[in-house]
Amino acid sequence: MQTSALPQTPAELRSLIRRGDLVRPTAGMAPGYVQANLVILPKDLAFDFMLFCQRNPKPCPLLEVVEAGSPEPSQMALGADLRKDVGKYRIYENGTMIDEPEDISDIWKEDLVSFLIGCSFTFEAALLDADIPLRHIEQDSNVSMYITSIQTAPAGAFSGPMVVSMRPIKQDKVIKAVTVTTRYPSVHGAPVHIGNPSAIGIHDIATPDIGDPTDILDDEVPVFWACGVTPQAVAMNSKPSLMITHSPGHMFITDSPDEKYSVL
Amino acid sequence: MQTSALPQTPAELRSLIRRGDLVRPTAGMAPGYVQANLVILPKDLAFDFMLFCQRNPKPCPLLEVVEAGSPEPSQMALGADLRKDVGKYRIYENGTMIDEPEDISDIWKEDLVSFLIGCSFTFEAALLDADIPLRHIEQDSNVSMYITSIQTAPAGAFSGPMVVSMRPIKQDKVIKAVTVTTRYPSVHGAPVHIGNPSAIGIHDIATPDIGDPTDILDDEVPVFWACGVTPQAVAMNSKPSLMITHSPGHMFITDSPDEKYSVL
Repeated sequence: MQTSALPQTPAELRSLIRRGDLVRPTAGMAPGYVQANLVILPKDLAFDFMLFCQRNPKPCPLLEVVEAGSPEPSQMALGADLRKDVGKYRIYENGTMIDEPEDISDIWKEDLVSFLIGCSFTFEAALLDADIPLRHIEQDSNVSMYITSIQTAPAGAFSGPMVVSMRPIKQDKVIKAVTVTTRYPSVHGAPVHIGNPSAIGIHDIATPDIGDPTDILDDEVPVFWACGVTPQAVAMNSKPSLMITHSPGHMFITDSPDEKYSVL
Repeated sequence: MQTSALPQTPAELRSLIRRGDLVRPTAGMAPGYVQANLVILPKDLAFDFMLFCQRNPKPCPLLEVVEAGSPEPSQMALGADLRKDVGKYRIYENGTMIDEPEDISDIWKEDLVSFLIGCSFTFEAALLDADIPLRHIEQDSNVSMYITSIQTAPAGAFSGPMVVSMRPIKQDKVIKAVTVTTRYPSVHGAPVHIGNPSAIGIHDIATPDIGDPTDILDDEVPVFWACGVTPQAVAMNSKPSLMITHSPGHMFITDSPDEKYSVL
């Protein structure tokens, strides 16, 4: 099924995902609605992680925090279930990914706090509206992500490198891509880097650490945005006893319109 | 001493305040540098309060969180001491203000977490630059603040009404005041209300709940911004065992330039 043939409302898409009928990267789905990264942690780690997000608003802009025991993000998706409504999850124990299930109901516990973090897929509709094409959407593939040499600001138990997503942008549209995404600080906002990948510790742009490779044409520049997969790199570095996340690209689709998060 | 005759650097002002030589509202001081509201809470309440801030970014935009036991906000004012560098503090026990000291060293404890919250004084320099005069600065008085009928989003132990600050703005400059302050979401950003005070539960505009009265001239409109004194109204409502704050108007003056917090 092409992305364009899918249902368009977040609730319909979540329902397909919950039934296990839509397990693939969500870029381009439900255009105009916020997609979110997911991090779930035991309550005794929740303060440190929220502090980590406060100190690192570019990679970890907090959209909603769901209190311990509740799987329902009532502000952004009333009736949704964070245990089932993401296509694929990742379970990290002591910094190692031990499983990648499609449902986490069986390991859910009452002390788990859920964090929804802004995702750059949200501003992609605005980029498309500004006539800036996005290759990973055209090719129905996952965006390219890289673990960089940029260090996050540590907080309590959490520290580690920043992850970025990369989109090739035509040279004459780079500035427009910056101004458009600047309007959305709560979904990563302006890029963190433009051009030379090695300046941020990326030594092989053709081989992303996460997601699919993306061709960069001669008249294009790689543009890098902070990425909500950062907590997963941080988990590998900081080794919390348990962290559950979405699998990169398989976002939680909310009912909140993108425009709600535009500052201008 | 007129505000204009005071030293201009944050560090010099904090030093005067620490010595007890400058105990008065800080509006207009150190123009171009961020001033902050202060909230100090025991660690067992810190997660709930940070969640409260995340859910109420207009009144409670978090600038920095200082981990338990440290009185030094190392990101925004290296070398400062949050126990001494605010002119006047308020101590709330179980929702009641029990003291208003100039120093809190004697009651400091190792489990206290400090929160610096954006203050509208920060965008006042930008308003003045835009040729929008501010009466409380001209008159060397404290800005007028009101407890409104707007309810904050509750989080754990915290709930209560939003506090706003009011500035009378000439009718033909109201729109400019909105656009200028929109650029600073982390110091309350755009107003929450323009005009009719009773629409937000303010029944006597001439008698602010907090701060000094401000005349409103015939060609002026009262414009209301969310205020970082909100946690104090929330403390009175939610009655945490202990909350220490600044005294309204007596802000913590940081070394961070305003422009760092402009989104455009």
